[in-house]
Amino acid sequence: MTLAADERAELEDVYARYAELLDDGPLAEWPALFEEECLYLVIPRENYDQGLPLAIMRCESRGMLEDRVRAVQETIMHEPRHLRHHITNVRGLRTEGGGFSVTANYSIIEVLQDELPRILSVGRYLDVLSRSPTGKLMFAEKRVVFDSVLVPNTIVYPL
Amino acid sequence: MTLAADERAELEDVYARYAELLDDGPLAEWPALFEEECLYLVIPRENYDQGLPLAIMRCESRGMLEDRVRAVQETIMHEPRHLRHHITNVRGLRTEGGGFSVTANYSIIEVLQDELPRILSVGRYLDVLSRSPTGKLMFAEKRVVFDSVLVPNTIVYPL
Amino acid sequence: MTLAADERAELEDVYARYAELLDDGPLAEWPALFEEECLYLVIPRENYDQGLPLAIMRCESRGMLEDRVRAVQETIMHEPRHLRHHITNVRGLRTEGGGFSVTANYSIIEVLQDELPRILSVGRYLDVLSRSPTGKLMFAEKRVVFDSVLVPNTIVYPL
Repeated sequence: MTLAADERAELEDVYARYAELLDDGPLAEWPALFEEECLYLVIPRENYDQGLPLAIMRCESRGMLEDRVRAVQETIMHEPRHLRHHITNVRGLRTEGGGFSVTANYSIIEVLQDELPRILSVGRYLDVLSRSPTGKLMFAEKRVVFDSVLVPNTIVYPL
Repeated sequence: MTLAADERAELEDVYARYAELLDDGPLAEWPALFEEECLYLVIPRENYDQGLPLAIMRCESRGMLEDRVRAVQETIMHEPRHLRHHITNVRGLRTEGGGFSVTANYSIIEVLQDELPRILSVGRYLDVLSRSPTGKLMFAEKRVVFDSVLVPNTIVYPL
Repeated sequence: MTLAADERAELEDVYARYAELLDDGPLAEWPALFEEECLYLVIPRENYDQGLPLAIMRCESRGMLEDRVRAVQETIMHEPRHLRHHITNVRGLRTEGGGFSVTANYSIIEVLQDELPRILSVGRYLDVLSRSPTGKLMFAEKRVVFDSVLVPNTIVYPL
């Protein structure tokens, strides 16, 4: 059940790249981490724990993720606001075809001008990564299950 | 002194599982990460740095940890309150018999209903892991040394 | 481009040690992680993103880092104040000569007496590590690019 060291290293690399694209950009390259046909959901923990399928954000293709990036770039690029991810405690299980089912904890710290940093969102990722024909690991499914019961007003930004 | 990659991967897996059981459950499986005879201490940093043995929580067997889990389940299961661990910067030294002496940084973020996430506790784990007859790594000793000088009122919950 | 598992494990060890020396000491050993001739910069993200070279802290040798440690020890050792680093999402590229160019996310949580922990600083490390003649990885360059637009008044302490 334990991952081999090289599998863990490969997963850590994927999550490091994920964080880098969201925190430091270029954001436009973030959708390329996903399969063409994929599932990206942002779900409140209360819903997830009760088995409710209701997500506050649902994208079903890389094209929809690209639309979301464009929406972000048009709406909040002018704000002096920065985000920083910590993605930790990655645990994975091998799936058929060379992919992984992965859970990880995340927190996103927001920095606004002239304020102390604060925690914007915290929760876990429940992901499925598949192996592309070129050997690269890509997100086939990503569920962002956030612990906060407040929906941040900045939810337009990818988590 | 440096751990081999497969040793580090194995340790990261143990800590990821530790966080998962405390954050997402089932909490009842958390004591099974410890040896039957074990030591679990929660110690304020001020005491630890001065060599004072005084802990605010002390369990000396897996049975005592199981008691603690029952206490938690009876007292706070009804609250809409979530915790999320980040366990990072794991460093380990091999001990005799295939075990490890491990230090790691931790933070626990608490989410209460209708509030922004906040940091409940931060500090480090000073642990000894031993290799069970079946080959599994288990906690023989865990010292949770917390930096906060405030004792959180939620200390009934495992850290 | 992906690091081998043993390379990642070695880098994780270096960053774990870095955090340990700053959080738990001995602080006097922190400069020994750097080359004799090195570059240590603390740069506001706004400056870095605009290509401005202006750093709020600049050390150009291990000796200057040692001076900084002495300044810290003389000014703030009496305060009941603790720091805790989380260094995550390490990504590295091999450089010539067996070294690495590394990026990592960091956050520093500060604990003051009788207060809840708070995030003091958050950002990323942009580092170059070189391989010493004895085979040890050491910091040749470290750029601490902090997201906060506030300059913390505790900036005298290494980040």
